[in-house]
Amino acid sequence: MVDIIQAHNEKRGTALLNQLKEKKPLFLCVIGVTETAKIQGISAAGANPEITDYTPPADVELLQLGKCKCIPGVPVTPDGIPTPALITMSALRLADIPSLVVSAGLKVKPYVPFVDLGGSPGRDIRTGRALDNAEEVLNRAKIAGENLSKTADYLVIGESIPGGTTTALSVLLAMGVDAKGKVSSSMPVNPHELKIRTVEAGLEAAGVEEGKFADDPIKAVSTVGDPMQPALAGLVLGAAEQVPVIMAGGTQMAAVLAVVNALNPDVLGNVAVGTTRWIVSDRTADLKGLVAEIADVPVLAAGLDFSKSRFDGLKAYEKGIVKEGVGCGGAAIAAMLKTGGKITKDTLLEEIERNYKQLVGSA
Amino acid sequence: MVDIIQAHNEKRGTALLNQLKEKKPLFLCVIGVTETAKIQGISAAGANPEITDYTPPADVELLQLGKCKCIPGVPVTPDGIPTPALITMSALRLADIPSLVVSAGLKVKPYVPFVDLGGSPGRDIRTGRALDNAEEVLNRAKIAGENLSKTADYLVIGESIPGGTTTALSVLLAMGVDAKGKVSSSMPVNPHELKIRTVEAGLEAAGVEEGKFADDPIKAVSTVGDPMQPALAGLVLGAAEQVPVIMAGGTQMAAVLAVVNALNPDVLGNVAVGTTRWIVSDRTADLKGLVAEIADVPVLAAGLDFSKSRFDGLKAYEKGIVKEGVGCGGAAIAAMLKTGGKITKDTLLEEIERNYKQLVGSA
Repeated sequence: MVDIIQAHNEKRGTALLNQLKEKKPLFLCVIGVTETAKIQGISAAGANPEITDYTPPADVELLQLGKCKCIPGVPVTPDGIPTPALITMSALRLADIPSLVVSAGLKVKPYVPFVDLGGSPGRDIRTGRALDNAEEVLNRAKIAGENLSKTADYLVIGESIPGGTTTALSVLLAMGVDAKGKVSSSMPVNPHELKIRTVEAGLEAAGVEEGKFADDPIKAVSTVGDPMQPALAGLVLGAAEQVPVIMAGGTQMAAVLAVVNALNPDVLGNVAVGTTRWIVSDRTADLKGLVAEIADVPVLAAGLDFSKSRFDGLKAYEKGIVKEGVGCGGAAIAAMLKTGGKITKDTLLEEIERNYKQLVGSA
Repeated sequence: MVDIIQAHNEKRGTALLNQLKEKKPLFLCVIGVTETAKIQGISAAGANPEITDYTPPADVELLQLGKCKCIPGVPVTPDGIPTPALITMSALRLADIPSLVVSAGLKVKPYVPFVDLGGSPGRDIRTGRALDNAEEVLNRAKIAGENLSKTADYLVIGESIPGGTTTALSVLLAMGVDAKGKVSSSMPVNPHELKIRTVEAGLEAAGVEEGKFADDPIKAVSTVGDPMQPALAGLVLGAAEQVPVIMAGGTQMAAVLAVVNALNPDVLGNVAVGTTRWIVSDRTADLKGLVAEIADVPVLAAGLDFSKSRFDGLKAYEKGIVKEGVGCGGAAIAAMLKTGGKITKDTLLEEIERNYKQLVGSA
């Protein structure tokens, strides 16, 4: 797989790629919202902060309907750069990979089927009481993971939750992981200071010192997390006992990895992080460092390259805008694997451009 | 498969059984409620009519948790006979068959993950306006069916909706199927007259003559149907283009079959009805006659036999109480098929008795 980059723990990564070649994956997308995303300057997953409630449902509509229904057009950043769901959708379609949407807590419901885990939207982490029923959501997700693991050779689990790198930072710090300055951003200039201030406000409101919840991930996510985290962790915990799981995302997956590691490290032999080249080469963040600190699972990256795209909206990805989301890196890896390498970064770009043209126009 | 009875269209039934032997199924259970179930004397799927809102969520909790959470104990008939979910749960566990719950419209949510299709509880069919968004639910179910069909060799789709044989009768009549006196009942004495009166009140309220909606199944279910019907039909329509589908239930599945047949008869070459011996030998109903009239798909029946059970609550099934539900017949067939016949009606009864003893006691 010439277009899959081994970014970390190459030995186990290679073994996993060999194991999964031409096997059949199931793609899950966990969606949720947190009020944290509405803090000005935190998230670029929407044209403005208020519209971030629509981004996750719109993303999964794009995956399953080929167009959004709860909003016109597709989700864009404030600069007009389109959602990475375009990449995920293109990868899943090209490789005929089935998908299932999982809701961890939404304000706006998508016009497609979704698995309900009984979760609710997350509060602003500055309240210090972000989630109400994280443990119940995690347990239900585990049941779903156990059942779905019997339906596929492996699972690829992505996310769409605006504001998610800030809540990743807070959970990592609450669990004692040295994460300051290491989480990514969907913006070209990573607002580390704003994120740290936000997280510190949340920890202070809860009266919690960094590292206090190292052994209590449920408390960590309940205090300063987001609904995606317990949902995705539960899916991994339920599925990875049976089949390999690719956690498809950037530094948000480090927070989920910390949760999984604290609850059942035994499953991590079956786990890898799958992301994009834009994440692993992001100089404003350090996914590999985070993963190495938590649990030394492989990090694989799809060698996506939009530098030669004929569309400025895609070329922008090369400037560090968006970078990852909706499991686009993991979906691209799965598409390459499933087709034994017939799908490459080039054929993928062709399909992405075709969908871009149809959905976004020539902008 | 000595314990699978060929009840109708034996030639295609045999071919299907050969095709599915030792293959991997996914079991889906579509749950929903309709106010129709609260008409006194209509449903035995609960100790009393008001509690029927709890029966579907409790049934699927039993499947996925091994116990109910939204009610104490397990759902029982007014006579105290336990839910057929006991059979389904035993079959799925013995054969290690994964399951996924699909909600078509509920008042009480289960404490397990469920796929939400955007449906609502059904109104009393005597209003003549039973469902609001049947077409949207059917379309979303189709998306789920398309995706899930890529995760299994075949699907087995059951239902739990109290009052469902009455709403089956009304949809069948609205679509011009000669169904009077042919739908089953969970009660030992089938209240045909009450059902017919209820259905006629619904058709009259809507100003609809029998057969008026022969070509418009969406109108038929919207007028006098229940939420399970468009959901289950959509799953079949989405999945059966790719893989075989066993519609797991009794005469309620005839109504779903009529809906599928009116929308896309081409998929029916991949469809069978899977039920219990108690249904196909029910002299107060005529599943085979209904199926023959609509679309000549195979009818398979699990040769379940509780006559020698040491528990009166199971022996009662032999007297025509309950008979079917929660896809128990189809789940039993799938368990036998998946294990190449290693699971028999006897090993199944052993497991059912073990679970009965633990969950119901010695009553």
